[in-house]
Amino acid sequence: MNPVELIKKKREGAALSENEFKHLIDGYLSGEVTDYQISAFFMACFFQGMTPQETKTFTSLMINSGVVVDLSHIQGKKVDKHSTGGVGDKVSLILAPMVAACGVPVPMISGRGLGHTGGTLDKLESIPGFRTDLDLNEYKNVIQELNLVMIGQTAEIAPADKKMYALRDVTATVQCIPLIAGSILSKKIAEGIDALVLDVKTGRGAFMRSIEQATTLAHTLVHLAEEFGKETFAFLTNMDQPLGSTIGNWLEVVESVICLRSAGDIPYGSSDLMELTYAQGAAMVLLGGQANSLQEGRALCEQAIRSGTAYSKFIELIERQGGEISFIEDLDTYPRSRFSADIHATEDGFLTDINPLELGYAAISLGAGRIKVGEAIDPKAGIVLQKKTGEVVRAGDVILTIYTDREDQLLSVKERIRQAIKVGPSKVALEPLIYSLISKNGTRTWL
Amino acid sequence: MNPVELIKKKREGAALSENEFKHLIDGYLSGEVTDYQISAFFMACFFQGMTPQETKTFTSLMINSGVVVDLSHIQGKKVDKHSTGGVGDKVSLILAPMVAACGVPVPMISGRGLGHTGGTLDKLESIPGFRTDLDLNEYKNVIQELNLVMIGQTAEIAPADKKMYALRDVTATVQCIPLIAGSILSKKIAEGIDALVLDVKTGRGAFMRSIEQATTLAHTLVHLAEEFGKETFAFLTNMDQPLGSTIGNWLEVVESVICLRSAGDIPYGSSDLMELTYAQGAAMVLLGGQANSLQEGRALCEQAIRSGTAYSKFIELIERQGGEISFIEDLDTYPRSRFSADIHATEDGFLTDINPLELGYAAISLGAGRIKVGEAIDPKAGIVLQKKTGEVVRAGDVILTIYTDREDQLLSVKERIRQAIKVGPSKVALEPLIYSLISKNGTRTWL
Repeated sequence: MNPVELIKKKREGAALSENEFKHLIDGYLSGEVTDYQISAFFMACFFQGMTPQETKTFTSLMINSGVVVDLSHIQGKKVDKHSTGGVGDKVSLILAPMVAACGVPVPMISGRGLGHTGGTLDKLESIPGFRTDLDLNEYKNVIQELNLVMIGQTAEIAPADKKMYALRDVTATVQCIPLIAGSILSKKIAEGIDALVLDVKTGRGAFMRSIEQATTLAHTLVHLAEEFGKETFAFLTNMDQPLGSTIGNWLEVVESVICLRSAGDIPYGSSDLMELTYAQGAAMVLLGGQANSLQEGRALCEQAIRSGTAYSKFIELIERQGGEISFIEDLDTYPRSRFSADIHATEDGFLTDINPLELGYAAISLGAGRIKVGEAIDPKAGIVLQKKTGEVVRAGDVILTIYTDREDQLLSVKERIRQAIKVGPSKVALEPLIYSLISKNGTRTWL
Repeated sequence: MNPVELIKKKREGAALSENEFKHLIDGYLSGEVTDYQISAFFMACFFQGMTPQETKTFTSLMINSGVVVDLSHIQGKKVDKHSTGGVGDKVSLILAPMVAACGVPVPMISGRGLGHTGGTLDKLESIPGFRTDLDLNEYKNVIQELNLVMIGQTAEIAPADKKMYALRDVTATVQCIPLIAGSILSKKIAEGIDALVLDVKTGRGAFMRSIEQATTLAHTLVHLAEEFGKETFAFLTNMDQPLGSTIGNWLEVVESVICLRSAGDIPYGSSDLMELTYAQGAAMVLLGGQANSLQEGRALCEQAIRSGTAYSKFIELIERQGGEISFIEDLDTYPRSRFSADIHATEDGFLTDINPLELGYAAISLGAGRIKVGEAIDPKAGIVLQKKTGEVVRAGDVILTIYTDREDQLLSVKERIRQAIKVGPSKVALEPLIYSLISKNGTRTWL
């Protein structure tokens, strides 16, 4: 089988057989099929798409390119969550221990920051000592002991996806729905889950800018996951302003810890962050069989926060994976950035816009993210928002504060952020945070 | 400038600036931009095309990636010819010495066989001793001495095209009109021509299967060449059966020599081969300023064949470039293939089809072409047609004969050829050999 003929076949819009996909993927892993052939093939896929059958075949081959973890010795339905990526999205840090505290095993394998978005792995690693590089045996032990584990992708899990993703990233072939769906689900299915909750983000701070594209991706993901026997709920959510009040790795851990500690009746923390966390938690608890409805699931999640069991689970996890819990217990002991600067409102009015894409890039410039794969990041760097879109501001109010060790970046980042924030005379209508919940039973509008 | 952004820009259908193209092409030559990025970019070009301005910029950068040969010391307008490739197309071997004999300097740089089609370079190299690897100084000397030179692409001429073409060949990105146009013209313009005749083939044996695609390519080529100040005629011709009576390198030299030697009033050789050769010769002589009309150009060409000056020029060229003319002067002294086999008609009727694509691939199996770049070819191997489409056949007649040293291929090639030949009860109407002539003055139907 000649790879050129297979590229051409896709280029002309035909569907490839399982054998043909196998030839490409196995050949790529063995080196017989080259990276320049795979990148041309992916670009052809971008334009011609894949049939549902092709997407399933492709995903299945990626799953089976490595180990499929067997977690059947652990009681209960194992449920994980995946977000397509946003700015300030630290939901996983709160969600995973909260759902585990509700009795649902959560085996979570996360990724690093990508483009303008942050990554759960980088956030966890901002906790001194925290190890995300557990091998698969340790992974199995930790989930068995704690009902919870949070690690990074190992070499054994979907190696074809790992190699292909790196290639897509540098050839402008990331934004192709069947490739995205296959990439996400191959990793999730290989990690040993029974069910999955997805957060498919749309808006300026998301990879899927348009709601149409995001909806198509959500449906593709749900359909595909169900084909593999994994019950899946996908939330279609808004990423038109940063989520919560912080952007940057340790800053997001701090915000998550504050939310986890909110033991009173009124949950502490930004309302959008906890709204999303509770919605996704309710779905995970329902899928995990610990509740009979989303309402019941949500009540259990709120109880886990209020009672402190979610926070205890988080502490247990950090300790078990080598993190120094003293920094969590006393957040003020963590090192501070050398420089900080406030951005003030220059007039009275309403905050009408905070562009998440711009704030994501600003955070990278401050040291919170990478421009190239493998670069070191500064866990302290980032942005703390004092105001969110829709709030009243008065001239002189601090809208946000930036933190960095890079003195040379202060001026340009301040200017970039000033351009990214708009104040107007009248309040703007906010888009809903959660548009809808998509499952095999159809789409349900979320209110 | 990030190459990923440039790939994405083309993927989204936008036009790239000169600087952006420069970044990609210079970066590719220097190794800063990778082959997997260029292959993704080319696949995006396949789907999104290029504007005329982009095609010009791209071509110009490829021309200037190497040496532009200065032939201004040679009197007269230098005219070359390029064919997009067919099966049995040995026109250049007759055309180049014929036009040179008419007083038009012909500096011809040719390529090797590609896919199912043959290459002038391989045909010339079947003449023992003939050197196609002259350097640019020798190239200039030979054209000055003989009004004719025939070599292969040198490392100095359009190196960007050389590197990119090799990549396109293995990534299914050959069939993209602006890339084809840029590739052809960058080499032709860099070799020092003043004017150009193009043979754009269409049909089952051509790279452009449909007449619409071929017409678009012909218009693109003519427009683009004129932008660079090179007057250009493009013939749109039919490749629905092999051209002439032979396929295979030395066999095609033999047919060409027989045509060149046809000193009588009735030209010897296949009528389709000489019809095409005279048409293109007339255009070259007209463009070269040695005739005032195509009719006059054709008369000069016919005269050059009849008088033997074309043949003498061919002998001069072979001698000057190191070839052993004894093999040309006595064609029977050339080594023979170890095996041959006839394909017979199994019924009475008309020969209604000879599939050129299938015969091209059959010739490769016999040893006349390559499956991979760099493979050795057997110059003796190939096919000699005794009948052409439209002719009457009787059961038992020899339709064609195959020649090879590969005994193990005989059975399968014979079967493949039998499938590729059709005999029917009634004569089929043949498509015209030449559809039209396209120039800056418009399209003229050819009859």
